[in-house]
Amino acid sequence: MVVELISVGTELLLGNIVNTNAQFLARECAGLGLSMYNQIVVGDNEERLSEAVRTALRRSDIVILTGGLGPTEDDLTKEVCAKVMGYPLEEDAHTRARIQEYFKNGIFKEIPENNWKQAMVPMGALVLDNDNGTAPGLILEKYGKSVILLPGPPVEMYPLFRDKVCPYLQKLQPEMILSRMVKICGCGESQVEERLLDLIDSQTNPTIATYAKTGEVHIRITARVSSEEEADKLIKPVVKEIKKRFGSTVYSTKEEETLEMAVVRLLKKYELTITTAESCTGGLLAGRIVNVPGASEVFREGFITYSNKAKRKILDVNKATLKKYGAVSKETAKEMATGGVFATDSDICIAVTGLAGPDGGTEEKPVGLVYMACYIDGHVTVEQYQFKGNRNKIREQSVVKALDLLRRCVLENCGKEK
Amino acid sequence: MVVELISVGTELLLGNIVNTNAQFLARECAGLGLSMYNQIVVGDNEERLSEAVRTALRRSDIVILTGGLGPTEDDLTKEVCAKVMGYPLEEDAHTRARIQEYFKNGIFKEIPENNWKQAMVPMGALVLDNDNGTAPGLILEKYGKSVILLPGPPVEMYPLFRDKVCPYLQKLQPEMILSRMVKICGCGESQVEERLLDLIDSQTNPTIATYAKTGEVHIRITARVSSEEEADKLIKPVVKEIKKRFGSTVYSTKEEETLEMAVVRLLKKYELTITTAESCTGGLLAGRIVNVPGASEVFREGFITYSNKAKRKILDVNKATLKKYGAVSKETAKEMATGGVFATDSDICIAVTGLAGPDGGTEEKPVGLVYMACYIDGHVTVEQYQFKGNRNKIREQSVVKALDLLRRCVLENCGKEK
Repeated sequence: MVVELISVGTELLLGNIVNTNAQFLARECAGLGLSMYNQIVVGDNEERLSEAVRTALRRSDIVILTGGLGPTEDDLTKEVCAKVMGYPLEEDAHTRARIQEYFKNGIFKEIPENNWKQAMVPMGALVLDNDNGTAPGLILEKYGKSVILLPGPPVEMYPLFRDKVCPYLQKLQPEMILSRMVKICGCGESQVEERLLDLIDSQTNPTIATYAKTGEVHIRITARVSSEEEADKLIKPVVKEIKKRFGSTVYSTKEEETLEMAVVRLLKKYELTITTAESCTGGLLAGRIVNVPGASEVFREGFITYSNKAKRKILDVNKATLKKYGAVSKETAKEMATGGVFATDSDICIAVTGLAGPDGGTEEKPVGLVYMACYIDGHVTVEQYQFKGNRNKIREQSVVKALDLLRRCVLENCGKEK
Repeated sequence: MVVELISVGTELLLGNIVNTNAQFLARECAGLGLSMYNQIVVGDNEERLSEAVRTALRRSDIVILTGGLGPTEDDLTKEVCAKVMGYPLEEDAHTRARIQEYFKNGIFKEIPENNWKQAMVPMGALVLDNDNGTAPGLILEKYGKSVILLPGPPVEMYPLFRDKVCPYLQKLQPEMILSRMVKICGCGESQVEERLLDLIDSQTNPTIATYAKTGEVHIRITARVSSEEEADKLIKPVVKEIKKRFGSTVYSTKEEETLEMAVVRLLKKYELTITTAESCTGGLLAGRIVNVPGASEVFREGFITYSNKAKRKILDVNKATLKKYGAVSKETAKEMATGGVFATDSDICIAVTGLAGPDGGTEEKPVGLVYMACYIDGHVTVEQYQFKGNRNKIREQSVVKALDLLRRCVLENCGKEK
């Protein structure tokens, strides 16, 4: 089946934002075995949007539109699609109640009048409840074609697509595309690909594809099958072979498990608690850990010691160490990690100190130089990295490497994970 | 003049890469005063690419294509455009010499045979030398329309566009588009639009558009002008009027200034230092602040007190308070903020405690309930929020509201910002 994307929004045509929604949907649709030949971006303009929808319906089976479902006058994706498909708009009582509920106890006490526009839906449309916003997702069907309308903000669109549109599309496309993921931290993408080249070249079903993420590589093994059992039979041996090749750099084989989730799972398994001592990452490392539901079992407190004074006072880093080696040094990282454990009753402390820039770099210690240390069971492991990119990129990479250092230290200390 | 983008590449349709070229070109074209109504993504497929080029030529004056100019068999953007425009390909001696030069002293000693394909250009085309790769940029003209072909890699495309395509387009379109931004925190998008409706409806030059961000609304005022002075004259009164209507909820009028940058700017202005005491946001608030270059002047240390024990030990929150009101309460938030200031030598502490879920909610204290407190100069301001959405969304909204609370408290305490 052929799917076409239409992204609606003047901010895309003006280049104010980058179209990450298109990438997300393209990847998801590829995973579902749908063929995509065209992606379109149009503004909030009735005539041009109508033309785009009509053209898409002529050449594709499924049309997915994102954006233009907001409460304002500009937003007319729903109105245009309803008109093109020939379905009048009517108020959906369920959506009206959901919007009312959404605003209850919210930040804004009064519901702005124009929000009720979002309760109007094309007659006969499938309404997909949006748990993260007021605009519902909508599916309109006619003559064997489907038009799917989703809100533009990724925080609303991603879960709506994954939870409610995916199952719908899976039903339309009876041949299943099932995939499994092997997630790796600590190898570059080209390195991973090189070590998989024989497998990639020889396999047609399942296929193997690699995806580079910040500090990680994800390997997707995808099979075209008629049942879950068949998928298992085809995919499992490949996953086993990949795990054999990459050993402990594989942190997860679960689609939805992030690196921080894998780390928290490990800590829970070995009943270990952890604290964080962050300088250049300024709370982002703790933030990633706390993002895992139930993180409170393993993480109780953390410190951001941005200044030298804070490093000394909170983490008991030696004044002489700071003076002799500097705040960005393996010695300071080591003392931060040790200090973190002694300042709390945690089993482990992970410490990060580095130069995120843009200023402050020297020839000896350039921007991007980051030290991280992990204290566990009386031992401290220190690692040095030289990251590239801007301030944000350096900090993001630091967080990933720190999480991976933590993971490796726990594995080494507590035995290999099965 | 109307410009249309066609991005060519199967990797875009598979979602392997995000289309940053489209954002770059859209922004550049908007800055040149060109109107863009459509952006298209197609794969390396002759039939579909021909259709896209023909459609674009019918409705636009300028068509910019990126990608598909490489040396391999897949690459057929140039061939397709030449065919559609009716210009045969011929070898360009200058480009042949440039490719030869490019490979001399390069990594590859021999020139791969298929690279000579890149020296073939449509008859009569303007050839734009590519200083960062072998594929030249090309401009084909016919019947007053222009088709511009650029290589896909950003490192080749950006300089080619800026240095060679921009001057060409400026000659075609003497008018400019200039815009200014007003950024607001503390009002919903529909609320903002309601209060601007008379301005939005009555203005044609400049135009006013609103954009919703997590916890923020951005208002863009855009004018079509012939000079910077004219833009100032048209835009300034509108910005002034918007600032008058929204008062201190306006945190910035600078395009590139984020909320955290505005907060750090304010703190620097009044020479105030700050610390953070985070529970449910787990370091993300500090992480946002530290993301501002130079944040070390105002932020030296912060605490993540996820457990009750950490709240007591680090922030001196009363055991009785935690027992009587619970960790998620205005009383605890208040004591956290006070404790943060006394645990450090900072002037201000911003504290956040809440239920990010997915578990732990009760009828009395549902998931999404977040208290935040700001201690400044002996006073503590506490606010209560009920956020919607998943764990991540709740935490993101909490960070934005905490930054805004901090901003408002500094303004109230130190006098209104001009």
